[in-house]
Amino acid sequence: MNHQAALTSYIAAFVAELVKNGVENAVVSPGSRSTPMAMVMAEHPDLNIHIHVDERSAAFFALGLAKASKQPVVLLCTSGTAAANYFPAIVEAFYSRVPLIVLTADRPHELRDVGAPQAIDQIRLYGHHVKWFVEMAPPESSEEMIRYARTVCARAAAAAKRAPSGPVHLNFPFREPLIPLLDQEDLFLSHEREERYVKVQTGEYTLSQDEFAEIAETISKTENGIIICGPLEEEMFAGEVVKLAQKLKFPILADPLSQLRSGNHDGAYIIDTYDTILKNKKALQELKPEVVIRFGAMPVSKPLSIFLKEHAHARQFVIDGGAGWRDQGLVSTDMIYCHETLFCSALLPLLMENKNDTYFSLWRSLNEITRECLQEINQTETLSEGKLFSQLSKMLPEGSLLFVGNSMPIRDLDTFFHFNQKSFKIMANRGANGIDGVVSTALGAASISQPAYLIVGDLTFFHDLNGLIASKLYDINLTVLLINNNGGGIFSFLPQSEHQKNFERLFGTPLDIQFEHSIRMFGGHYDLIEDWNHLSSSLARSLENKGLNVLEITTKRDENVQEHRDLTNAVSREISRFLEGEYR
Amino acid sequence: MNHQAALTSYIAAFVAELVKNGVENAVVSPGSRSTPMAMVMAEHPDLNIHIHVDERSAAFFALGLAKASKQPVVLLCTSGTAAANYFPAIVEAFYSRVPLIVLTADRPHELRDVGAPQAIDQIRLYGHHVKWFVEMAPPESSEEMIRYARTVCARAAAAAKRAPSGPVHLNFPFREPLIPLLDQEDLFLSHEREERYVKVQTGEYTLSQDEFAEIAETISKTENGIIICGPLEEEMFAGEVVKLAQKLKFPILADPLSQLRSGNHDGAYIIDTYDTILKNKKALQELKPEVVIRFGAMPVSKPLSIFLKEHAHARQFVIDGGAGWRDQGLVSTDMIYCHETLFCSALLPLLMENKNDTYFSLWRSLNEITRECLQEINQTETLSEGKLFSQLSKMLPEGSLLFVGNSMPIRDLDTFFHFNQKSFKIMANRGANGIDGVVSTALGAASISQPAYLIVGDLTFFHDLNGLIASKLYDINLTVLLINNNGGGIFSFLPQSEHQKNFERLFGTPLDIQFEHSIRMFGGHYDLIEDWNHLSSSLARSLENKGLNVLEITTKRDENVQEHRDLTNAVSREISRFLEGEYR
Repeated sequence: MNHQAALTSYIAAFVAELVKNGVENAVVSPGSRSTPMAMVMAEHPDLNIHIHVDERSAAFFALGLAKASKQPVVLLCTSGTAAANYFPAIVEAFYSRVPLIVLTADRPHELRDVGAPQAIDQIRLYGHHVKWFVEMAPPESSEEMIRYARTVCARAAAAAKRAPSGPVHLNFPFREPLIPLLDQEDLFLSHEREERYVKVQTGEYTLSQDEFAEIAETISKTENGIIICGPLEEEMFAGEVVKLAQKLKFPILADPLSQLRSGNHDGAYIIDTYDTILKNKKALQELKPEVVIRFGAMPVSKPLSIFLKEHAHARQFVIDGGAGWRDQGLVSTDMIYCHETLFCSALLPLLMENKNDTYFSLWRSLNEITRECLQEINQTETLSEGKLFSQLSKMLPEGSLLFVGNSMPIRDLDTFFHFNQKSFKIMANRGANGIDGVVSTALGAASISQPAYLIVGDLTFFHDLNGLIASKLYDINLTVLLINNNGGGIFSFLPQSEHQKNFERLFGTPLDIQFEHSIRMFGGHYDLIEDWNHLSSSLARSLENKGLNVLEITTKRDENVQEHRDLTNAVSREISRFLEGEYR
Repeated sequence: MNHQAALTSYIAAFVAELVKNGVENAVVSPGSRSTPMAMVMAEHPDLNIHIHVDERSAAFFALGLAKASKQPVVLLCTSGTAAANYFPAIVEAFYSRVPLIVLTADRPHELRDVGAPQAIDQIRLYGHHVKWFVEMAPPESSEEMIRYARTVCARAAAAAKRAPSGPVHLNFPFREPLIPLLDQEDLFLSHEREERYVKVQTGEYTLSQDEFAEIAETISKTENGIIICGPLEEEMFAGEVVKLAQKLKFPILADPLSQLRSGNHDGAYIIDTYDTILKNKKALQELKPEVVIRFGAMPVSKPLSIFLKEHAHARQFVIDGGAGWRDQGLVSTDMIYCHETLFCSALLPLLMENKNDTYFSLWRSLNEITRECLQEINQTETLSEGKLFSQLSKMLPEGSLLFVGNSMPIRDLDTFFHFNQKSFKIMANRGANGIDGVVSTALGAASISQPAYLIVGDLTFFHDLNGLIASKLYDINLTVLLINNNGGGIFSFLPQSEHQKNFERLFGTPLDIQFEHSIRMFGGHYDLIEDWNHLSSSLARSLENKGLNVLEITTKRDENVQEHRDLTNAVSREISRFLEGEYR
């Protein structure tokens, strides 16, 4: 069998198996060395191919597709620095546990490390930031090598999906000629096993009944406990954890990415202002828990981290279905590797009901006071960043996907986005919390879930401007709420802001650009928001406009930091007054 | 001594030593964890700080600074995916042997792999693509640790500079509080050794006199030899290698990046159309060399690579001052690790003069015929890509820096840019030949060398659009000749172009964007070139306009490939006629 025929069979077997293992989307960047894989993929009727010239954006776009679809997404690029451009998104996928199957085309062995063009060392290119690496065998079409291609594919998909999900990397050496033979009718047919080659059942971590019983006994002994839910995306989790809270009378401190701050579950136990409450020193002390049960990744709130450290004496359970070590304060007493929803449902029948809701009531009262005080932000007529986040749940339609930038947006969401019964899907890149690739991740997610909104600052938006091309080329509807405070807003909250000498140069970093031009280039609709009414009408219109809508809201960094400080101080005074008995 | 004082002394010692080791430029991206290093660097009077928000562009900008200044350039970023964004430029720097000192701020050990924000595994983050990696000790200010900071710095600079030059990576764990104490007058003073801590003399590879004599004897025995100069940037090299050619009567096949195609050295021995000549099968056979002496990286010409393989019987010397293995055809007989200029000057007195110039004359005649035929391209009135490259040496002023994009531009330069006595400095990213980061690399180089021109296609320009911000923020003068053929022109030259079904989707990849918008956003001047006169006047005006000038030349991919094929065929017919004796 000749080279091209062997190349074709080997790759077709691999691609067929990809689809059989649940892969629906592939993001492909143009290149020469990857030609055979790209051409074969494009022949598969059940694989959606998305083309993206900039590999950095491509990889984040794939990350967004995988986050929203909860299925592994394939990435394909040519050899050389193309593959290096994937690195930021791969790192993010690794830490945020998103399944990606990264395919890099490579020169064959005889063209490596001899100065051949676009040849770099692609072996373990992403180091420790992928779950599995395979240097693929050169294409052959013996029965054994076809089995090999199919098996590696099934393993790669399983490795990407199995808890904790994450990226895997397969490096394919391809020799010229690179053109596959595509005139076969049964290109993707497996003659040996029609259905699929291997079915991999990846399972979930769980504990024994005895271990659950022991945990239930410990928890049942205490009356003052809290449940903390960090970033987590499990469909059945909200319902189960709320039942746990009800039985235990434990408040649920719910991170904005826990998916618990909105939805039709019981909101009575949801505490959504702990970030503000715990900035009050007295509250931080008095809300002393005996037990903490924590799910999901580390919440965004720094005061919450301090609170957990402050109460290191408490029994702190960390439940992690991905078997990691999510405990930056080093305060956990019990690290439990168990699927989060399984944990809740297994524990529930074993728990004694807590009749004492004193501790919970204190949290609830503080939460109500704080929510009310934070509503003050809505009194302002100016376009304030805080008010914007406070209005989000009202302004955005039921069922929206809301993608949130890092730095200030996620923190403002934490402060101002309170429990509501709309079913929002809230997402952010919280694996490594970068400001890179956010636009592309949001667009990838938006191509799965509609209507979709991105709320993001100017530096983050700038960092991934190229990503906007996807909205143009693939008509993806996304409305961007662009908060332009002309620089890095978060630094105004950090100690360096007191050292003015080089502050604007090193940290403020104003770009002084008119984003409107770029939006026009990518064929988007653009509105410079003038006031709150304008924002409402623009948001309404954005639902009708197809493609990209960018609503730019300009704010001032110094006014923003002042507004936040004034508000936090005002709330803190109320909390102190309450704790000192005035309201009791 | 308290934490902040120790942090300050340790970092200041490091930064002081950087400057003493020849570092003049640092490219800094804003971030929190890198605060102490950024703030201390900004205090140093002899360090130019360039701020760049997008770390990918920042790293390529640093690459350009280092390429043009031939000094190591420092990169600094915060922890997390910021550091991963450096990867493409680091890979390019590694393969193109450009010295970079990459400093990444990291969380301290207790905050690693525990879910802390922006904490990723930064140990050996760039794998095998850096020459040296150091996980720095946490800052301390004992005499020993200050010596350590200074010594590591000197070693890092030496490792980056010593042949082959390349990137090094130092990872700094920083603990809060991150604010240094900057009110000391003698912040950068070394009390122990005022001048510098260690002077590192990095030397160069050379051979013994006997070894040179043996090589000279071998070469002197032959009459039919060629010298090949690939990409190389050594100031004294041109003069020395020309003397070698004169004595040996060997033609010099000079890659456009060899710096030999322009300058005031003797051009009589320079063969600049071998790429076209060797496309003729008869020429490929008849120009049989007995000896090949090759310097520099692999030339861009594919016909030349085929020629070298075709004549694998020849004695093929590869001279590499960086001790690599630049031989993609696996045809070298002698791999010689010796500084290229040293090699020429050591060999010259040992060589016998070659009196027979028959072989050289054949090359020269073919070169003259080919040059003349290629000039035909100037007959066209349309805006042709080929003609553009043919006109470059006339159109651009003496002393220009010309940065060339990969894919088609570098190949067109190879074909159409012929020997001239202007002193152009020609650069490209030929380590890994990526289309990424080209705009930023050109801007980095342009901030050292003026006047500066970038000639680039639309996909490459798009890939690094963000990089343009540097021209705006730092008023860097750069004139971009943007060849917009709306997609990937090179694929039309590859075999997949014969498979139309998915060709435009997978390879042509038209973006259909108006770059003008983006240029306006970055405050640049923009001209859509209408004809050749317009191009001349725009180029003249661009010399007066400060900052960014983009001259967009729209072409058609299908017409371009046809023009190239017609011309190659016409030249080939002339060559065949000549070789068949008509012109002899």
